[in-house]
Amino acid sequence: MSAYEELITSVKETSLLRSTMAVLGWDQRTKMPPGGVEQRSNQLALLARLTHERATDPHVGELLAHCESDTALTSDAHSDSAANLREIRRGYDRATKLPSDHVEENARTHAIAEHHWEEARAKSDFTLYEPWLEKNIDLARKTAEFYGWESDEEPWDALAEGFEPGMRARQIESVFTPLRDRLQALVSDLGSASRKPSTQVRDVRLPIDTQMAFVTKIAEGIGFDFSRGRIDTTVHPFCSGTHPGDVRITTRFSESMFFDALTATMHETGHGIYEQGLPVEHNGTPLGRAVSLGIHESQSRMWENFVGRSLPFWRWCRPLVEADLGISQLSAEEIYEGMNVVEPDFIRVEADEATYNLHIMVRFELERALMNGDLAAADVPHEWNRRYKEYLGVDVPNDAVGCLQDVHWSGGAFGYFPTYTLGNLYAAQIFEKIREDITDIDGQFERGEFGPLKTWLNENLHVHGSRYVPSELCERLTGKPLSADALLRHLERKLRPLYGL
Amino acid sequence: MSAYEELITSVKETSLLRSTMAVLGWDQRTKMPPGGVEQRSNQLALLARLTHERATDPHVGELLAHCESDTALTSDAHSDSAANLREIRRGYDRATKLPSDHVEENARTHAIAEHHWEEARAKSDFTLYEPWLEKNIDLARKTAEFYGWESDEEPWDALAEGFEPGMRARQIESVFTPLRDRLQALVSDLGSASRKPSTQVRDVRLPIDTQMAFVTKIAEGIGFDFSRGRIDTTVHPFCSGTHPGDVRITTRFSESMFFDALTATMHETGHGIYEQGLPVEHNGTPLGRAVSLGIHESQSRMWENFVGRSLPFWRWCRPLVEADLGISQLSAEEIYEGMNVVEPDFIRVEADEATYNLHIMVRFELERALMNGDLAAADVPHEWNRRYKEYLGVDVPNDAVGCLQDVHWSGGAFGYFPTYTLGNLYAAQIFEKIREDITDIDGQFERGEFGPLKTWLNENLHVHGSRYVPSELCERLTGKPLSADALLRHLERKLRPLYGL
Repeated sequence: MSAYEELITSVKETSLLRSTMAVLGWDQRTKMPPGGVEQRSNQLALLARLTHERATDPHVGELLAHCESDTALTSDAHSDSAANLREIRRGYDRATKLPSDHVEENARTHAIAEHHWEEARAKSDFTLYEPWLEKNIDLARKTAEFYGWESDEEPWDALAEGFEPGMRARQIESVFTPLRDRLQALVSDLGSASRKPSTQVRDVRLPIDTQMAFVTKIAEGIGFDFSRGRIDTTVHPFCSGTHPGDVRITTRFSESMFFDALTATMHETGHGIYEQGLPVEHNGTPLGRAVSLGIHESQSRMWENFVGRSLPFWRWCRPLVEADLGISQLSAEEIYEGMNVVEPDFIRVEADEATYNLHIMVRFELERALMNGDLAAADVPHEWNRRYKEYLGVDVPNDAVGCLQDVHWSGGAFGYFPTYTLGNLYAAQIFEKIREDITDIDGQFERGEFGPLKTWLNENLHVHGSRYVPSELCERLTGKPLSADALLRHLERKLRPLYGL
Repeated sequence: MSAYEELITSVKETSLLRSTMAVLGWDQRTKMPPGGVEQRSNQLALLARLTHERATDPHVGELLAHCESDTALTSDAHSDSAANLREIRRGYDRATKLPSDHVEENARTHAIAEHHWEEARAKSDFTLYEPWLEKNIDLARKTAEFYGWESDEEPWDALAEGFEPGMRARQIESVFTPLRDRLQALVSDLGSASRKPSTQVRDVRLPIDTQMAFVTKIAEGIGFDFSRGRIDTTVHPFCSGTHPGDVRITTRFSESMFFDALTATMHETGHGIYEQGLPVEHNGTPLGRAVSLGIHESQSRMWENFVGRSLPFWRWCRPLVEADLGISQLSAEEIYEGMNVVEPDFIRVEADEATYNLHIMVRFELERALMNGDLAAADVPHEWNRRYKEYLGVDVPNDAVGCLQDVHWSGGAFGYFPTYTLGNLYAAQIFEKIREDITDIDGQFERGEFGPLKTWLNENLHVHGSRYVPSELCERLTGKPLSADALLRHLERKLRPLYGL
C-alpha cells in the first residue's frame, strides 16, 4: 500500500467512527427517551475521544508529510490527491491543537447542556440553562485559545474557521454593516407602503399527521430520495448526513403553522439533496464531503426561498394543496403573497427572507462579544432583547422565543450563525447564474419539474465535494467573488411589487 | 486506583462502546433507510473490531489474574467483586479465543445477510438468502472451532454457551424428548375433544394506529416506564436495552391480528421491564447485566402468557378494549378462550403456549445438524417442512412463513432458539413460587394491579443482574432445580378445561 493509500484508509476509518456519532446525535434529538441522556453523553464522549485519538495519531502526520513531498500527488492543485491532502492537512493541524481530555469534556458537556437547554426552553426559564451556557462559553474560549489567532484576528475567528474556512469576524462585519443598512431601509419602505400582501395563509389550521404526509410528498417531489433517507420531527430541525445512502432530515409542526413547516422541510430537503448528491466513491474523504456550512446553507436556502417561496412553485403546488389538504379558498397568488410578507418578529426560523439576516446579526454580535469576554452568560437575555428592539423594532416577550430559541450554543457551536447569511448570499448569486443556464426555469417550476435544477446543482456543485475552497467554488460557479448584490437585487425585485412599490 | 477499580473502569468502557452497537442495531431494524445498509455494516464491523480489541487487551487479562489472586475480592463467592470477576473471566476467556478479523468478518457478514434475509422473506424466495445462510453457517462453525468443545460435547454447545451458560445439546435433548411426548399427547387430546374454545377474537379488524395506541397503553399499564424507553415497529420484534434509562421494545402489527400484536408487545414489555429493573449503579459490569437469555425469556413469557393470556387479566382489560377500541361483542371469557386456542400452525411467534415448544424443537434439531455438518443450507427448507409435518402435522405453504420466518440465523445466532423453551420452563416454575408469595395475584390482575408482580420480580430477580449463574438463581428463587413439571402442570390445568376435558 502506498503512503497515500494508507493515509486515505486511515482517514476513511476515522470518518466512519465519526459517522456513528452522527447516528447517535440524530437519535438523541429525535428518538431517545429522556432517561437515556446520561448514557448518551458518555457514549458520545468516548467516541469523541477515540475519534480524536485517531485523527491526531502522529503516524497520520508522518503519512501526510510524506505525501506532501511527492509532487506527483500535489502538482495539480485540483487533482483528487492534492485536494484531499490540502483538506486532511487543515483538519489534522486543527485537531492536533486540541488535547484529548478537552475534546472529551466538550462532547460530554454539550450533550448535557443540550438536555438542559431543551428543558429551559420548554419552561421558558433561562436560569435553568445559564450555568450550562456559561460552561459552554468557557469551553469555547479555551478551544479558541488552543487553536490560536493572529494579531489582526480575534477568538471568534479561530472557531468560525471550523465552519467556514477563511471567514473572519472583521470581514463579516464589513459585509453585514452595509447589508443591515439596506435591509433596514427596505423593511422600512415596505412597512410604510399602502398596499399590504394577503395574510390569509395564517388562517389555515391542519392536523399534524396531514401536514407530515404532505411535506413528505413535497420533499420527494422536489428530489429527495427516500430510499436513501428519512424524515422525522424534532425540536430544532436539522439534516444529518454521513453517507449519500443515509441522509436524515427533520422538521417540526404546529397545527396553525403549516406553511412554516413546509418551508422548514424544503430547507432541510435542500441540505439533504446536497448530501445525497455528494460522490459516494469519495465517502469518508474530503472529496466526498460538503465544502463549508455557508455553501451547505446556500443549498437549503435555494430550495426554501428561490423555489418554495416563488410564484411558479405555488402555481404547481396549489392544486395539490387543494386535493390533499382541502384548502380551496386560497389562490396560488394569495399563498405566494402570504409566504413573502415582511414582518419583523422574534423567531429566526420563522423569519421572512429580508429580516432573517437581521436575526443573524444579533447572534453574530453577541457571540463575538461572548468570545472576547465582553459579555457574560447572565447578560445574554438583556443584550439579546435590546438588539431585537434596535434592529427589528420588536419586544421579545419571553426567553423561550428569545435567546433560548436556538440549539447552537447549547451544542458549543459559536461562530456558526453567520454561515446562514453567507448561505443567503451564495444562494442568490448562484441562482442568478442558474437562471442564465436554465432559461425556462420558471416554466419548469410551474410544471413541477425540479429535475433540471437538481441536476445543475448535482453536476456543478455537489459532485465536487471539498475539491475547491468556498471562495474558489463561488468564482467557478458564478464567475465572481461573493457579494451582497445578488441577494439585495432578488429581495428588492420580489418584495417591492408585493407592497405596490 | 486499585487493580479491581482499573479492571471495572476498563470493562465499563468496553461495555459503553458495545452499547453504541446496540443503538446502531436498533436503528438498522427500525429506522434506517435501505440505502444505509453498506455504511451500517462497515460501522458495525469497525465497532466490533474496536470492542473486541478492548475486550481482549492482554492488560485486562493481567488485571483479572491479579484480582483473582486477592482473596479479599473472591472469598465470598456472591460478593460484588467475586461475581464480577467470575463473569469477566468467562467473557475474557471466550473473547480471547476469537481472532479480531474473524469477529469483524462476522459483524459485516451478519449485517448484509440480515438485509438479504429481509428481501428473501418479503419475496418468499429462499434462493436469495441461501448463499448468505451458507456463509453464516461456515462462520458459525469456525466460531465453534475457535471456542472448542470437550470430547462429550459438540460444536453447537460451544455456541450455546454464549447464550445460556452451562447448557449442552445432550441435556436439552434429554428434556425436550419427554416434553415433546407429553405435549404431543396433550395437543392430540385437545384436538379430539368435543368442546372447542371460542375463536371470535379472530374476526376483529383494527387500524394499525389504533392498535399501536392501545398496546402502548397496556405496556405502560403493566409497568413499562416510557420516560426510560420507547416502542417502535419492526419486521421481527425485539427488545434492545443497554442501560436501565434507555430500553427500546419493538412490535409488529397486522389489521387482522390485533391480539397477536398485543401478546407480542407484552412479551417484549416483559424483556423491557427486566432491563429497566437492572441495578443502574452496576451498569456496564456483569452485576448490571441480565444473567442469560433463558432467564430473560422467562420474564417475557411471564408477562405474555401468565399475565396476558390469563382470565383475570382479561376481566381487567376487557372494559378498556370496549372503551378504546369499540369491541363490545366479546366477553372477557371469549377473549380469554380465543387467546388460548391450541392449534398447530407454522408461525412460531404466533403459536399458542403448548405447540410453541414444538416449533423450538424443529429449530434446535436443524441447527444442531447444521453445526455438526450433517445438513447443508440448501436442504434447510425441505428438512424444515418435513419436521413441521411430523411434529405439528402441518404443511408449510411457502418459505416466507417457513424457514425464512426468523431473523436469528441471518444474524449468526445459532444455539439461541432453545432459550425460548427454557424461558417457558423457568417462567412456569418461578410463577408457581410467586403464587405462593402473592396469594391475591388473580384479584390484583382483575383490578389492574400489576405493581406487586413487577416489584417481586424487581426485588428477587432483576436486582441481582448476573450475581448468580442461571441454575443457582433458579434454585434460589424456587427452591428447586429446573424441570418441565411446572410448565406441564400449568398447561394441563389451563387448557384441558377450555376443551371440556
